[in-house]
Parts: sequence; structure tokens; C-alpha cells
Amino acid sequence: MKRSEMKKCAQRAVEMFEKAHIFLTDEEKANIEVADFGLGRVENVGLELITYVNTMRVCAKEMVLFPYQTCPEHWHVGDENTPGKEETFRCRFGEVFLYVDGEGSKENIKGRLPQTDVTVFKEIHLLPGQQYTLMPGTKHWFQGGPGGAVVSEFSTRSTDETDVFTDKEIVRIPVIEED
Amino acid sequence: MKRSEMKKCAQRAVEMFEKAHIFLTDEEKANIEVADFGLGRVENVGLELITYVNTMRVCAKEMVLFPYQTCPEHWHVGDENTPGKEETFRCRFGEVFLYVDGEGSKENIKGRLPQTDVTVFKEIHLLPGQQYTLMPGTKHWFQGGPGGAVVSEFSTRSTDETDVFTDKEIVRIPVIEED
Repeated sequence: MKRSEMKKCAQRAVEMFEKAHIFLTDEEKANIEVADFGLGRVENVGLELITYVNTMRVCAKEMVLFPYQTCPEHWHVGDENTPGKEETFRCRFGEVFLYVDGEGSKENIKGRLPQTDVTVFKEIHLLPGQQYTLMPGTKHWFQGGPGGAVVSEFSTRSTDETDVFTDKEIVRIPVIEED
Repeated sequence: MKRSEMKKCAQRAVEMFEKAHIFLTDEEKANIEVADFGLGRVENVGLELITYVNTMRVCAKEMVLFPYQTCPEHWHVGDENTPGKEETFRCRFGEVFLYVDGEGSKENIKGRLPQTDVTVFKEIHLLPGQQYTLMPGTKHWFQGGPGGAVVSEFSTRSTDETDVFTDKEIVRIPVIEED
């Protein structure tokens, strides 16, 4: 992802947070993370976020999804000592389409098929104030609705680098090209 | 606490959440917890909250403090298997005075001395977007500023019934009297 594109997405995320009345400090606004998952089509497959806290036990993030922007399908694995990450998504603004394993088919989703591999289609539609908890190992992907979304995540420790993605072309930690 | 008083506090908390643009479902609004800590002076020592999620590993709450309302001094203990609760407070609206062990004296705090025993006076002043993480065992109390506060809590599992309070007259789980 080019630095100019990253900055554009970060600025747009700041505007979404403001629309949602989520108060961020200037330092937080200057440090919004833009993830393009190495695919180079961030408006289709991407995520903007700020991590409030991430200790050995607890993590909280605030995320922005632009209209129909998708966080690609992945799941959280553990190790011999700890189960994988458990997470709760709470919609704060806009709407979110969350997909997990279960009944549903790609022909019948309200969201749009993203430009990345997805294999689970049980749809959970979250409006502001609605939330869903994912236990470790649950395969999932999620997408902003027509007006995008702001979503809080409450979870155990986040170790993005150990996430497993369905799309093998994905690289979680962004590579920034100067331009 | 009388049911009528509890309902009045819950309604006032709903209004504070609305002022802070925190979106709650109707069900959540109808289930706001009002804690008077058994002291019967809820406007001075009390807390209003909604628990979004509380699993074996993760808890997230949204709390309201009225102007100068105090959550009394306490700390979180663990057991043989798990350390005590770790929590991060993030101020979303208004301001919060948080007190922990360290330099500071009761003569020099910006908050007001509450009608309950307090022994730690190191002051952490949180404005919107500011936050503080408390590791297990940290003695603390906190108070809403002049206009009250809305505070998010991100933590490990919450087991209020095992909290230890400095004020031995405190009973954490409210007793409601019909009136």
C-alpha cells in the first residue's frame, strides 16, 4: 500500500469516528492503523483501527469499515498454553455484516462478495447496540454495510501475526511503499 | 435502596449515555444496573452500568458516574488458578478522577472526599479519550467530575462478588426494597 493511500484511509476513518461520536485523542488520530492485508485493494479488502489496550490478557480496539469494505476471512489459533483469541464485536455506528460457519450461501447474503476468498456465509447482521461473541477458532469475515460501520472489539490478547487467513495471498502486517 | 430511587438513577444514566452518544438497545436501557454498595446514599457512593459481555476471559462494561458520584475504594483478588481482575478505564464523556496508591494526600485532590472510607490519593485525571490500566490487586476508587462521566471498562472476567472493599459496611450486590 502506498503511504498516500494509507493516509487517505486514515483520514477517512477519523471522519467516521467523528460521525460516530467516538472521542479519540490527537495522538490516536495520528496513529490509526490501516490494514490492506497485502492485497493492494484496501477499499475492498481492508480495515482501519485503533488499539486502545493490548496486554497479556485483555485487548480493546475501535474499528472502521468503509461501505462494503471487508475484513477478510480468518480465525484465531492458540498455542500449548493459551486458547486462541476470543472476541466480541459491538456495532457502534452504521451496520455490519458478519459471516460465520453455518447455514447460508453466497447467493443469499445481504453484503457483497469481497475480492478475497470466503467460505462461510451464515449472516449476522449487526445494527448499533447489537453485538456478537466469537469463541476461539471460529472462522469469520465481516463487512461494513452501505454506510460503513464503526465497531468496538473486546477480546483477549490480540496477536494479529498468528491469525490464519483463508486467502493465502494475505499478509497481515502492512508493507508501506513510499510515494 | 428503594426501587423508585433505583429507577430514577437508571433513567438519569440513560440520559447521560444519550448525551455521550453511546447507543444502547431498548433491552439494555431497561436493564441498567444501579449499585448503591449497600450504603443507601447512591448519589454520593454509587455507580450505574451496563455489562456488554462477561465471559470466562473477557468483560466489557459501560459505566455512568453522576457529578461527584464515587465508586468506592476496592481491589480485585485472584484465586489459586487465576490472577485478579485487570481493568482499563477509558473516559468517553465528561471527566473522571481516579485514585490509586502513590503520592498524593486527601487535602490536595481535585475530587471531593466521598462518604465512604478511602485511603489512596494519587490522582489520575481522565478526560475524553484518556485511559488508565489497573493491574490486579491495585487499590482504587474513582469519581465523576463536575459534569459526571461516562467510562468504558475493558477487563478480564468480572466477579463483583469477590471484590474487596476498604469500607467494611459495603455490600456489592444491591438489595432492593419495594416502595
